[in-house]
Amino acid sequence: MTQTPLNVKLSPGQLPPSPREHLTSPVTQAALRIQNSITAATREYLFTNGFTEMMPPVIGPVTDPGVRGAKQLDVDFYGHHYKIMTSVILYKQASLLAFDKIFYIAPNVRLEPLETATTGRHLVEFTQIDVEVRDATRDDVLDVVQGLLRHIVTYTLRESKADLAALGRDPEAFAALLREDFLRMTHAQAVQTLRDLGHLQSTDAEIDWVGERLISEQTDRPFFIVDYPKGSRGFTDGESYTEPGVLRNFDLIAADGFGELASGGERTYEYRRLIERMRETGENPAKYAWYLDIARDGLPSSAGFGLGLERVTRYLAGLDAVWQANAYPKLPGIASP
Amino acid sequence: MTQTPLNVKLSPGQLPPSPREHLTSPVTQAALRIQNSITAATREYLFTNGFTEMMPPVIGPVTDPGVRGAKQLDVDFYGHHYKIMTSVILYKQASLLAFDKIFYIAPNVRLEPLETATTGRHLVEFTQIDVEVRDATRDDVLDVVQGLLRHIVTYTLRESKADLAALGRDPEAFAALLREDFLRMTHAQAVQTLRDLGHLQSTDAEIDWVGERLISEQTDRPFFIVDYPKGSRGFTDGESYTEPGVLRNFDLIAADGFGELASGGERTYEYRRLIERMRETGENPAKYAWYLDIARDGLPSSAGFGLGLERVTRYLAGLDAVWQANAYPKLPGIASP
Repeated sequence: MTQTPLNVKLSPGQLPPSPREHLTSPVTQAALRIQNSITAATREYLFTNGFTEMMPPVIGPVTDPGVRGAKQLDVDFYGHHYKIMTSVILYKQASLLAFDKIFYIAPNVRLEPLETATTGRHLVEFTQIDVEVRDATRDDVLDVVQGLLRHIVTYTLRESKADLAALGRDPEAFAALLREDFLRMTHAQAVQTLRDLGHLQSTDAEIDWVGERLISEQTDRPFFIVDYPKGSRGFTDGESYTEPGVLRNFDLIAADGFGELASGGERTYEYRRLIERMRETGENPAKYAWYLDIARDGLPSSAGFGLGLERVTRYLAGLDAVWQANAYPKLPGIASP
Repeated sequence: MTQTPLNVKLSPGQLPPSPREHLTSPVTQAALRIQNSITAATREYLFTNGFTEMMPPVIGPVTDPGVRGAKQLDVDFYGHHYKIMTSVILYKQASLLAFDKIFYIAPNVRLEPLETATTGRHLVEFTQIDVEVRDATRDDVLDVVQGLLRHIVTYTLRESKADLAALGRDPEAFAALLREDFLRMTHAQAVQTLRDLGHLQSTDAEIDWVGERLISEQTDRPFFIVDYPKGSRGFTDGESYTEPGVLRNFDLIAADGFGELASGGERTYEYRRLIERMRETGENPAKYAWYLDIARDGLPSSAGFGLGLERVTRYLAGLDAVWQANAYPKLPGIASP
């Protein structure tokens, strides 16, 4: 049986069509079936490795402070100021009081800047596979994320073979990912690589989107950027005890220009350090009362990561835009269901 | 190996303890592990029966209009008035444009009245297993929900045996559920039964909480109440073509006083009927533009249901309160994470 490949190419900056057109598109349907393989593989891998799944909260008194450039949504909870979750990071740390290894598959809402509507990489509402391991180091969770992503790829290549073929995605694109360990480079090395490529990346900030795509185009498999400088991230990212100013964190960048898939690292967990880091990053500790109450009596040390479900789906399916991997894509500033 | 049973009894109206105490409680941990069995069983059953899982949206221009007595939360989406999902019902119907059988395991937020804080049955934030089947009738989905609940019970009795024993839950409580079909009574019959028990249930409204508990105490297994009168539910519940004023819907009530587990039925899907029912129920059609745009060009006919995850967990685990089945319980009016 030969299959006519679907037309998956978008023009640059192309926006989603009407809900009806999007939902009846064979490309959307293939992408969502592939996404079912990805979540099934994720649960298979994490349950086999002793993780417990937690149900995600949607609102809370505070949320992830570390979402660069994105705004949070406010809600009124019986007269109290609450936020919609931009990530479940604070709940992940607290949940380690119940279980040593936990994960959430959680919806997040981040009001990204209007200019990101056409990047093909941003969604206001998206799903994150959010993993946390008690007493783990950053390097421990690099192994978890590599193992998880490989399992996702193996499972999806097997279970979603026809959909991947229909989308014209060559399984060979994942040969190096399955064969070789993911490289680990420091943020400083990534900056140098980008400067050598003629991109003026700042040494003390996040790798910018253009830089991220550039560096992602240089490799045959995903790789890690580790050790971001302190100013670039929120207070939850743990600072090195031996190299002050360096965060024990990472980003996982996909090959072939698909950009960032995951972020994570060790967490700040000691009460005094949390207060100190909140003050340094301009956060008001009073807002974080429930979390600091727990930290005062002892929050477990941990490391973990968040893996973007639509981004992984886009990478596996070889899609031009992340919105092709979401049934009801919400883009910055655009009113849609 | 003998196991000391955990202390699971609550005093009437007892509220959750601090997050630390709740998360470190062996009762909470057992309940959440049982919940993992329930979601695993749900996915096994639904995937085996050809369903596709969809990722839940958190916000949208409108949400479920039919949540009796509960308020919706407003958010500002780039200057547009959006709501947090009270259920994904509108998205379930639209998603049938992509796949014939779909489900969501979706977080919902409903601002319940303050007086429900101590019922042991209400959570402001909870998770719903939300199932929809294209071209199905109400009676078709009664079979789906019975099959699903039986599979959940069988799976959980097997996989969470030690946790159920620790909570003192006797597997015999589910013998009739596994052996005999669930009874189906009409709303009119339920009203008569309650009146015979001396409870003054109104004939044209929702069965009230006290009545629901009363009727739930009379049976050895869950049962269905079908055919609610039109005034009692929102516009999405489909009205009978042969018996005007009767809705082709149902509630699933647990045995032993655990009360409602699920609600569902056939849906209103024809454009003219939707407009008519919106007007009858005081909803402004203009607010539902995206949904009505789809309905104008043809929304599939369907039936489905929402099964409350914490309520099923409470029933299986034999817990006094639904908040014992949630890691971060939010109760009406009470500020908590």
